[in-house]
Amino acid sequence: MNDSVREVNIGLLGCGTIGSGVFHLLRKNAAELTEAAGRPLSLAHILVKELEEPRPFLVDRTRMTTNAREALNDPEIDLYIEVMGGLEPARSYALEVLGRGKSLVTSNKELVAHHGRELMEAAAATGATVRFEAAVGGGVPLIRPMEESLGGDVIQKVMGIVNGTTNYVLWRMSSEGGTYSEALTEAKKLGYAEADPTADVSGNDAASKLAILCSIAFKAGYTSEQVYREGIQKVRPEDIENARELGYAVKLLAVAGRADGGVYARVHPTMIPLEHPLASISGNFNSIFVIGESVGDLMFYGQGAGSLPTATAILGDVVNVVRNLGRPPVSKRSYWSRPGELIPMDDVKTRFYTVLKVVDRPGVLAQIAGIFGENEVSLESVVQKGIGDSAQIVLITHEVSEKNFRAAREGLQRLEVVQEIPSVIRVEEGA
Amino acid sequence: MNDSVREVNIGLLGCGTIGSGVFHLLRKNAAELTEAAGRPLSLAHILVKELEEPRPFLVDRTRMTTNAREALNDPEIDLYIEVMGGLEPARSYALEVLGRGKSLVTSNKELVAHHGRELMEAAAATGATVRFEAAVGGGVPLIRPMEESLGGDVIQKVMGIVNGTTNYVLWRMSSEGGTYSEALTEAKKLGYAEADPTADVSGNDAASKLAILCSIAFKAGYTSEQVYREGIQKVRPEDIENARELGYAVKLLAVAGRADGGVYARVHPTMIPLEHPLASISGNFNSIFVIGESVGDLMFYGQGAGSLPTATAILGDVVNVVRNLGRPPVSKRSYWSRPGELIPMDDVKTRFYTVLKVVDRPGVLAQIAGIFGENEVSLESVVQKGIGDSAQIVLITHEVSEKNFRAAREGLQRLEVVQEIPSVIRVEEGA
Repeated sequence: MNDSVREVNIGLLGCGTIGSGVFHLLRKNAAELTEAAGRPLSLAHILVKELEEPRPFLVDRTRMTTNAREALNDPEIDLYIEVMGGLEPARSYALEVLGRGKSLVTSNKELVAHHGRELMEAAAATGATVRFEAAVGGGVPLIRPMEESLGGDVIQKVMGIVNGTTNYVLWRMSSEGGTYSEALTEAKKLGYAEADPTADVSGNDAASKLAILCSIAFKAGYTSEQVYREGIQKVRPEDIENARELGYAVKLLAVAGRADGGVYARVHPTMIPLEHPLASISGNFNSIFVIGESVGDLMFYGQGAGSLPTATAILGDVVNVVRNLGRPPVSKRSYWSRPGELIPMDDVKTRFYTVLKVVDRPGVLAQIAGIFGENEVSLESVVQKGIGDSAQIVLITHEVSEKNFRAAREGLQRLEVVQEIPSVIRVEEGA
Repeated sequence: MNDSVREVNIGLLGCGTIGSGVFHLLRKNAAELTEAAGRPLSLAHILVKELEEPRPFLVDRTRMTTNAREALNDPEIDLYIEVMGGLEPARSYALEVLGRGKSLVTSNKELVAHHGRELMEAAAATGATVRFEAAVGGGVPLIRPMEESLGGDVIQKVMGIVNGTTNYVLWRMSSEGGTYSEALTEAKKLGYAEADPTADVSGNDAASKLAILCSIAFKAGYTSEQVYREGIQKVRPEDIENARELGYAVKLLAVAGRADGGVYARVHPTMIPLEHPLASISGNFNSIFVIGESVGDLMFYGQGAGSLPTATAILGDVVNVVRNLGRPPVSKRSYWSRPGELIPMDDVKTRFYTVLKVVDRPGVLAQIAGIFGENEVSLESVVQKGIGDSAQIVLITHEVSEKNFRAAREGLQRLEVVQEIPSVIRVEEGA
């Protein structure tokens, strides 16, 4: 049989929201996929936890199995798609099929962010390939452009909105008003937030994605745990209003870049200038800014989640793997074995927006300015808002190390005239 | 000698702004490029018109030649980069090297937009590859993501800012005020417009790029001449102001999509809602919106021109070609041989913003509305601005065919109460 036109047999591991989208598109766009991949694609096995699970798209029951061995041991399978999510058994299955020389396409960000090194080494050992376009930015083509189109450039910084839930919440607080809780309730209603939204609102999901972006951009193996993170739970409507008055939008950004000979990586609520392209990203969209030394500013925008956008990214990877079946892999990503080091958060420099509730009497500002001065924090702007019992000072610092800012903050908390520090948000200028 | 580590010999055809950027990056990022491509890259010949031409980056004279035969006939060359621009001799050289089985990376949009079919057929015949990421959107990764990452989707619409000169001019008119001529003068000063800016301001440059995008998105061979185009020369400061009041920005957009079983493609000044991501693209940036049936809205943003951004895109293509040297091409783009047909402009439906200078007396609006009605043009909004001698009517139509709108416009011009129609700009909603 002529191998170039033989059907490609695919094993689909997992069939929930994303997996059923993959099944749906494999059927609906069979002609386009065959043209793009050069060969017809066929799903040989679909490994599921439950045959009866509710799924957004109808899936052929005859290919389904709950028996992992049946799906994993079939020698006829050419490549696997893993969309189970979570670390185990995804990791064991992935290592098993890669060990047998089968290429793997995955949307599993935790898997790549925690076990990327193991996966790349297992693949390199057998000549298999791991692709994971869907793991960051959902349907947005990002990983492959960063790896391939920017192969001739040196990436300086990556800064993006990589979590649609938190962007929806902050965007709604900004456009409709209301509190964090109200916006989160609305996000759940619309299906943009899960019943338990912790992974999203805490910044954990974004931190996993940033670890993957760091590995690709800075050519070493970074893991999720290394990335500093802060969630959006404490962002107040007043902060969003203050930000706008100062010319900023508040976004949960994943930011990583080169500085002082090292690399920093952090996820936190961020004030970004209103005229920056990331400031106007609305709803549950994702958008990732990449700054290359030679190419300058690039931005990639689209749906970061959802069944069909994610399935589209997976199938783009599948097309790429099929086109290269039987060829040695174009890149072994051997850099992933070099542990990526990060600048300790203490030494990372950013600017800070801070709100202080203060006692309204003469000399207060002098005391506050004194504390900042002692800790080598210089101030860019200071505005008093409200008087009497509702007196507040809203300030933005110049660039300062985390360590110095924290010392200043502790000093302020000891001042009798400072009643509370309800808000601290980092500020980025975008370049 | 082990072929996998042998230097790759490259012939560089042309060495102006872009070519010298390619030379510069090949030196500066040699380590990154070797890692990405898997083999060291070396420039064997640099074909130039004049040895002494001024260039933004210093180029090694020892590799330069003004003798085309020397560069083209060297059997040691593995691949060619063509950055001469223009149709001839670029076309002849390209066909010659492809005919000999050498792959070609080009930034030449006219070449691909006019002779894409010939190039793809010549490459397919010998197993060579043509790559042209830099031809559209400069440094923005766009062609490869559309071809590969979206291989599993059906592209519905492409809409973008693909010319930095015109975006700068319109953006400056919008942000600083002033006329088209004033903004163009400023663009020339900053190096964003050429001494003769005709190709840019007329929409011709954008039309070539749109023809290429159409070929990729709609899988047939489209050529530059097929694309309808209108320049930005007639856009008035008043139009930009009116647009803003109505909630729109004015951009030169290249728009193509599927409608009524066919494909339309047009380049023209366009009013787009202020909240659309394309509305806020500032300065001389490019940004391309791609709507896929399954993936939804995607946007790609970055520097659409300039020596180093364009050179980065070229080297991304070079890395890809080198990784695949000696392998059969992954795609022959055989669809390019099928001539792409476009819906005749007469039948293309859009909305129109129109300004009428009118005689200010009762009954005028009735006459105007009558003409629109006769031609089956329905109106979405009508506003009278100014009174007496400066009376104007500003209106926006619902969707209407070009043919019907033109008939209405001719009818209006015959009305005694309509003194002039100073402005007609198409309106897009973005989806």
